[in-house]
Amino acid sequence: MENLKMQMSTMRRSFHKIAEPGWMEFKTTLRLLEELSSYGYDLDYGKKIHSQRMGLPKEEIMKTYVDSLGLKSDFDLSEILEGYTGVVARLDTGRKGPRIGLRFDIDANGIEEARDEGHRPFSEGFASENNFAMHACGHDGHMTIGLTLAKWVSENRDNLKGSFTFIFQPAEEGVRGAKSMVGAGVVDNLDYLLGGHLGLGVESGVLGLGTVGFLATSKLDIYFEGVPSHSGASPELGRNALLAAASCALNLHSLPQFGSGMSRLNVGILRAGSSRNVVPSTAFMEVETRGENEEINQLLREKVDKVIEGSALAFGVKFRVEEAGGAPAYNSYDKDFVALVADHLEGDFKIDIARSLGGSEDITYMMNRVEELGGRSLHFMFGSDLKAAHHNNRFDFDEESLAMAFKALRRTIELLVEE
Amino acid sequence: MENLKMQMSTMRRSFHKIAEPGWMEFKTTLRLLEELSSYGYDLDYGKKIHSQRMGLPKEEIMKTYVDSLGLKSDFDLSEILEGYTGVVARLDTGRKGPRIGLRFDIDANGIEEARDEGHRPFSEGFASENNFAMHACGHDGHMTIGLTLAKWVSENRDNLKGSFTFIFQPAEEGVRGAKSMVGAGVVDNLDYLLGGHLGLGVESGVLGLGTVGFLATSKLDIYFEGVPSHSGASPELGRNALLAAASCALNLHSLPQFGSGMSRLNVGILRAGSSRNVVPSTAFMEVETRGENEEINQLLREKVDKVIEGSALAFGVKFRVEEAGGAPAYNSYDKDFVALVADHLEGDFKIDIARSLGGSEDITYMMNRVEELGGRSLHFMFGSDLKAAHHNNRFDFDEESLAMAFKALRRTIELLVEE
Amino acid sequence: MENLKMQMSTMRRSFHKIAEPGWMEFKTTLRLLEELSSYGYDLDYGKKIHSQRMGLPKEEIMKTYVDSLGLKSDFDLSEILEGYTGVVARLDTGRKGPRIGLRFDIDANGIEEARDEGHRPFSEGFASENNFAMHACGHDGHMTIGLTLAKWVSENRDNLKGSFTFIFQPAEEGVRGAKSMVGAGVVDNLDYLLGGHLGLGVESGVLGLGTVGFLATSKLDIYFEGVPSHSGASPELGRNALLAAASCALNLHSLPQFGSGMSRLNVGILRAGSSRNVVPSTAFMEVETRGENEEINQLLREKVDKVIEGSALAFGVKFRVEEAGGAPAYNSYDKDFVALVADHLEGDFKIDIARSLGGSEDITYMMNRVEELGGRSLHFMFGSDLKAAHHNNRFDFDEESLAMAFKALRRTIELLVEE
Amino acid sequence: MENLKMQMSTMRRSFHKIAEPGWMEFKTTLRLLEELSSYGYDLDYGKKIHSQRMGLPKEEIMKTYVDSLGLKSDFDLSEILEGYTGVVARLDTGRKGPRIGLRFDIDANGIEEARDEGHRPFSEGFASENNFAMHACGHDGHMTIGLTLAKWVSENRDNLKGSFTFIFQPAEEGVRGAKSMVGAGVVDNLDYLLGGHLGLGVESGVLGLGTVGFLATSKLDIYFEGVPSHSGASPELGRNALLAAASCALNLHSLPQFGSGMSRLNVGILRAGSSRNVVPSTAFMEVETRGENEEINQLLREKVDKVIEGSALAFGVKFRVEEAGGAPAYNSYDKDFVALVADHLEGDFKIDIARSLGGSEDITYMMNRVEELGGRSLHFMFGSDLKAAHHNNRFDFDEESLAMAFKALRRTIELLVEE
Repeated sequence: MENLKMQMSTMRRSFHKIAEPGWMEFKTTLRLLEELSSYGYDLDYGKKIHSQRMGLPKEEIMKTYVDSLGLKSDFDLSEILEGYTGVVARLDTGRKGPRIGLRFDIDANGIEEARDEGHRPFSEGFASENNFAMHACGHDGHMTIGLTLAKWVSENRDNLKGSFTFIFQPAEEGVRGAKSMVGAGVVDNLDYLLGGHLGLGVESGVLGLGTVGFLATSKLDIYFEGVPSHSGASPELGRNALLAAASCALNLHSLPQFGSGMSRLNVGILRAGSSRNVVPSTAFMEVETRGENEEINQLLREKVDKVIEGSALAFGVKFRVEEAGGAPAYNSYDKDFVALVADHLEGDFKIDIARSLGGSEDITYMMNRVEELGGRSLHFMFGSDLKAAHHNNRFDFDEESLAMAFKALRRTIELLVEE
Repeated sequence: MENLKMQMSTMRRSFHKIAEPGWMEFKTTLRLLEELSSYGYDLDYGKKIHSQRMGLPKEEIMKTYVDSLGLKSDFDLSEILEGYTGVVARLDTGRKGPRIGLRFDIDANGIEEARDEGHRPFSEGFASENNFAMHACGHDGHMTIGLTLAKWVSENRDNLKGSFTFIFQPAEEGVRGAKSMVGAGVVDNLDYLLGGHLGLGVESGVLGLGTVGFLATSKLDIYFEGVPSHSGASPELGRNALLAAASCALNLHSLPQFGSGMSRLNVGILRAGSSRNVVPSTAFMEVETRGENEEINQLLREKVDKVIEGSALAFGVKFRVEEAGGAPAYNSYDKDFVALVADHLEGDFKIDIARSLGGSEDITYMMNRVEELGGRSLHFMFGSDLKAAHHNNRFDFDEESLAMAFKALRRTIELLVEE
Repeated sequence: MENLKMQMSTMRRSFHKIAEPGWMEFKTTLRLLEELSSYGYDLDYGKKIHSQRMGLPKEEIMKTYVDSLGLKSDFDLSEILEGYTGVVARLDTGRKGPRIGLRFDIDANGIEEARDEGHRPFSEGFASENNFAMHACGHDGHMTIGLTLAKWVSENRDNLKGSFTFIFQPAEEGVRGAKSMVGAGVVDNLDYLLGGHLGLGVESGVLGLGTVGFLATSKLDIYFEGVPSHSGASPELGRNALLAAASCALNLHSLPQFGSGMSRLNVGILRAGSSRNVVPSTAFMEVETRGENEEINQLLREKVDKVIEGSALAFGVKFRVEEAGGAPAYNSYDKDFVALVADHLEGDFKIDIARSLGGSEDITYMMNRVEELGGRSLHFMFGSDLKAAHHNNRFDFDEESLAMAFKALRRTIELLVEE
Repeated sequence: MENLKMQMSTMRRSFHKIAEPGWMEFKTTLRLLEELSSYGYDLDYGKKIHSQRMGLPKEEIMKTYVDSLGLKSDFDLSEILEGYTGVVARLDTGRKGPRIGLRFDIDANGIEEARDEGHRPFSEGFASENNFAMHACGHDGHMTIGLTLAKWVSENRDNLKGSFTFIFQPAEEGVRGAKSMVGAGVVDNLDYLLGGHLGLGVESGVLGLGTVGFLATSKLDIYFEGVPSHSGASPELGRNALLAAASCALNLHSLPQFGSGMSRLNVGILRAGSSRNVVPSTAFMEVETRGENEEINQLLREKVDKVIEGSALAFGVKFRVEEAGGAPAYNSYDKDFVALVADHLEGDFKIDIARSLGGSEDITYMMNRVEELGGRSLHFMFGSDLKAAHHNNRFDFDEESLAMAFKALRRTIELLVEE
């Protein structure tokens, strides 16, 4: 067991070091391919595992990073390096049994990691080598859990039944990657889908089962385009995109009052104009909506669209809305399934059922899809004491929880193949 | 002359006492009909002298006032009492000569007159008997000048040539009445149109000739209609007309910056909502635009329409815009005509040419129409020291200026018929 | 029992007919005084039972109504007719026992009642005789329950113990009256406070016990005062109260997003400006805030104050905020007390414990005060099928519920004096 | 003369090539020092000729550029390379006579020059070598005129009287540099100040004398600082700088309606927020105001300050306003002086008196200062046909106008020393 912990800690740190943001997990994907290949899995990657991707980084940013890496491999990296990141690894035992899927997210956050002695990843030498990315949400741990489990499945294939699909999903931050994979059919033939998350306020030693309270969310990028003119000589000839955006931002914030449940809206970023003495002709906004359920987020989204269109019309400017991310709600867990698993795991873990996430995670696309097709899904919370909040530049988790998570998933697999 | 002054003062005071707002000049019109009839004029009134009327008062307000008056007359008052107020009086000398039109406005302001000893109309007993109206712009004087002149023309018809058309126009306040009369062809067969205004900052004894600087203007009534809902239980079901109007008002005020000349916009009134705990479903706004020239006001008006439409769209409410008034610009006076008249009047008056009004007056509809058809127009300013600004509830003018205005117009007529 | 129902129905209808809005319950108060006096109660009324009153009607409106009534009575009506309405009636059995308070609200809503055959109060001849007020929330029923109970207490005084305080509170609509009475000490010496409400979505036959979910709320009247100026000639001299209010309204609506619980804000009314061509110098807004708990409403209220102050400052106008109403939250019922009463009443009623109001009611001032001083409070919901929602102009309730409410309170009193 | 034209064209092109933005005219200043030194002038530069500088570029931008240049010189460049750019060159003839100052601006615009064959500076090889700066306003020509004149003065010093001060001012774009030099006393001891500008819509061959219509202007950088918080979990803990800025921008645009003359306001740039799901805690705005005269700009500026303060207060955020530039108005030219010069130059030039600039130029600081101290100032417009408007990336002027401008100034000097 100590050996397992050591191995998992080492692997986690190696992933932490190569932190890469969503759709740019190039080194990360290559590393996953190499590991999973060595375990004997069939691998799908590139365009085959994606449909429509949301919230892609700007092309020049991706290209600059690709060029700086100079990656070489026997794997065909061409599509991966265009941002078709992530891996789907399959192993069929050849024996009749359940088709089990497991999902792990792989991207880092677009923030710069703290670099001082008080921050363990720095003091112990595994801080991110990219100043534009940091694993501040535990996905480095998730990959470690996934690979460790994949290795165990491979090593124990003769004692198992059915088939296993390990889904390593890119771009969970900004809730962008799951929809693309679901659209490519990645979860279409599964009897079970298992997934989970480290931390989230759950203390070390506690295992959450049947997470609920996933909020529906939309992420929108909004562009206004007007007409510039000299603000002193001929202001009347301009069409003011800055004022359209300002009015839009204020009006948007009047929307999220819902009697039917919680809703949220945030205009997180607004950038407009190019010069002090020119009527501003461009504006850009990053907006997100959230709703306690799908209906709320949907109605809120419709109201948002009206405000955008009306604000543009009022100032005579053009507009464009891009979906930069999104995830559905997930509020009701599979009670029978959870009870079954809880019964099996009790004793080994301090179990907490139906905790609320109170946030968004795009695994809900996969859970909803699996359930729609008649399968069952289960979301775990892997309790882990944190050094700082998720997305903070001093985030770090209790590495003991890696082995606990591995064990919880391993024992759940054992249960499912026995049934 | 002293006799003339006395008569004019007496007549002015009798009009002052029966002050009536635009489209409701019922007693006023009847009085005009009786006087002009006694001078032997042919009279047109009612629907015949009107086309489309803007900015009518609410029906119940008109009806209540009509009922309170109980007017009886040999004249057919039926159309007049529906708001087709004003009179056009014609006299043909039977001799070939110029067709001269003269325009006088007849409505009062919708304000309550001051009632204290320091205000002459009150202390000398001729304050308005209607608490909802006051002659605070001198139109009582204008009617007096017009009737006195009409009487003089009638008495001197044997020494005159051509024909005379005295136009007593309702609803100049809010620039509403002239368009309706022009649409009915009232100024279509004139060689000359004369008009003028008392006061306007010109001191007693000074005669302005060839007034310019009439601003183009539009008066708009805007209605938003949303959907009410309980603000605590189900705010998301409402469509908020109050916020649409608030956003509209702010956005409208960003419009009037024009490099090509002066422009103005004012949201003068906003009323929205009915109850503290209901999402407000109605809103009403009174707006006006002004422009140094027609192009500015037109472009501003187009921008205004976009803002209204966009604001309604943003909040999902319906809207309706009603033209409540309007007048075109008039910036270039007829230099030859003014020089001719100035030459003739010099000596009798201290003449000031091409003073700027810096405001709006709907006689410009008539002046522009006459000039379009090949006639000539001339606007006078009848200097008159004022007790308080126009539209103030303590407004009063120097009654000496009535005789001066009469004389200026009489002598101009003498010049035109001699030509 | 049929007799009781008949009497209660008759009394309710007589109150329905004299519907009067908050702080103007003149006939209503006089009727209460006469009844309670005839039952032998000690009566307090006028200034004695009030402290600071919020949300008073305009003086001229009160005066006009008072004058139209011409009330005469042996009771001293002078203070009552200044708006110190309501009654506190006391009866001491002379025997040691619990001091029990009972609160009933007496005001009507400021709406015009439906007048068609489909509306029972009209077709059966007991519709409101005042077109500016209607009992559309059931307070006519509440008074009937209160008087019937007061009569029963008086008649059964020899079998009872302790003392009884019947509080007939004015101005519950707009949550205005309770604070004033609490400030006057009306509930300061009570061991128990009982109160309740008809309808509220609870069906006939059901008795709610231990209502929760009372939202904290504030009602604010906001006045902005700027400087007028001519919008064409000198707009820069004006200080625009309309734009200050418009900006304030939009900014206020950005506030109610709280992670800690439900919150609400509504700008229900906005009125600004006096004339189309004058920079608007006055604005008035009616605003309300709500919060799931006191902390939320308090923090929201602080944010509201900042927005008002900042909006005024931005446009250089003065402002004034008046508290027009308010009530604290009440979320946790007295479980032991409710269990005791439920136990006692079970069998007679279909009991529903801890239903949520999801709205505001100012009895919470009284309940909180009584509990602070060591007493116990209990709020009932008297189930009653409704013809239309509360505050609708076709509101009517099932009169059968009056006797049920009386019985519930009577039996609770019997329980408390037995203890 | 052909020789002069050739020399001036060559020099202009060499300046065009090394275009540098305001406060970063390092190579430009060094070149000026070398030339003026070779003509025998006494040179002041660095901190000595500056007081408070407005609108400095960010330190890292200046440093990066300085480092890239690696300038070496016998002149002490240390202060210059901190942004104390520009030169004041003095020559005293030793003979009693007028003290004449001449001002030339030296900075380029912060835009990227067009690079295609249709653009002469590119096709003939003298386009800017810096992609962040371009002489798109003719200051390369101004320096050429100044140096040519300085050389002529030096060569003809024995025929001249009095003293000469050549002021090469940095950072005219954004109206930043003149105030700093005036504060250092650079124009304090002058009897005459001459200055001028190429182009401005005046055609080649025309010489404008006594320019008026310089608008008063202020350039403001506004910073809002709030408090970030998670927009989903705890929006109420944030203080939203983005909404403060949005509200500020809209409210600011309601200000520029002035009856007393032209006024303008533009929010040219707004940048706020850092992340989609965080309540935005920072915002930045670039704003400018203009007024036909000082009073208008001053009153507008006061209104702007209120809006900024109020917007910050409304959203509970801090704010900071930095003066990034500014210039006073100049509306009345020195009629006698202009007549004198016009008389002298007539015949050689097609003269146009008192043309209006209709924009802002910070030479007005110098002109006002000289006139305050009893001196006289004169501004020329050097007519020059343009290829594209000022500040356009295809701007180019008629180089023939350089010699014309030189001649006009030379002949004016001849007149002044003869007097």
